[in-house]
Amino acid sequence: MEIERKFLITELPTDLESYPFHLIEQGYLNTDPVIRVRRQDDEFYMTYKGKGFLAREEYNLPLNREAYEHLITKADGNIICKKRYLIPIKDTSLTIELDIFEGSFAPLIIAEVEFPSIEEAESFTPPAWFKEDVTEDRHYSNSYLSSVRLDQQRP
Amino acid sequence: MEIERKFLITELPTDLESYPFHLIEQGYLNTDPVIRVRRQDDEFYMTYKGKGFLAREEYNLPLNREAYEHLITKADGNIICKKRYLIPIKDTSLTIELDIFEGSFAPLIIAEVEFPSIEEAESFTPPAWFKEDVTEDRHYSNSYLSSVRLDQQRP
Repeated sequence: MEIERKFLITELPTDLESYPFHLIEQGYLNTDPVIRVRRQDDEFYMTYKGKGFLAREEYNLPLNREAYEHLITKADGNIICKKRYLIPIKDTSLTIELDIFEGSFAPLIIAEVEFPSIEEAESFTPPAWFKEDVTEDRHYSNSYLSSVRLDQQRP
Repeated sequence: MEIERKFLITELPTDLESYPFHLIEQGYLNTDPVIRVRRQDDEFYMTYKGKGFLAREEYNLPLNREAYEHLITKADGNIICKKRYLIPIKDTSLTIELDIFEGSFAPLIIAEVEFPSIEEAESFTPPAWFKEDVTEDRHYSNSYLSSVRLDQQRP
């Protein structure tokens, strides 16, 4: 079960380059349930996510490079590329996943925080640089982004 | 972890029609690892199988009808249709899954038995009507069948 909140970001932290990051490329074979294939650096996997915003069932299944390269050709809509910084939140065990979208989705930036319990998710006080809480706004789900027609306006 | 043995069948049991059966349609999005979508009667799911013949990691993830119908269009090669009879083996907790292939794969018939342990799989004495043990013959895996060119000879 994954429990997370999601926020829009418009200004990046000044010390961003001091944090580790991953390069992510992903596509969706289906959106309900979500079936996603992802390359993260040199790791490859397929993820299945059940329904829900704040909390949902999630399975991560390993792929090899050949399987990923085969499956990504079956993806619907847009392939999403993003740079994901991992920023620990001081005095907590929480980590901000800061997704800086590249290509057609730039300059979209989204921060996600995963929580060990729904209570902690609900009581979380976001840092001052987090903007709008879009946890329950499906327009900011990556699966929705994958389905957007890129000749139309972005959300 | 799934532990099973597989046998060719050339003669059907005379009491076959007294056993329950399922109608199965399935296709493969990938073969290593196996990613399969299956309709079984009015249930739909996606299955991920790691490597191996006698024993391998397996996850069954539920799909809805729309997801299945979307994903089956992405399948590689042949869609496999079969009628699966479930035949309990007397005085054991084991069940024979007797797959009678339809369409292009007829008259292929394969019996599979799943075991709770590798020891039981290895000590299993097949019923007299089971023919060749093809557990380790990849030519009788359904994923291989999905990839066979149907204008060529079958294995």
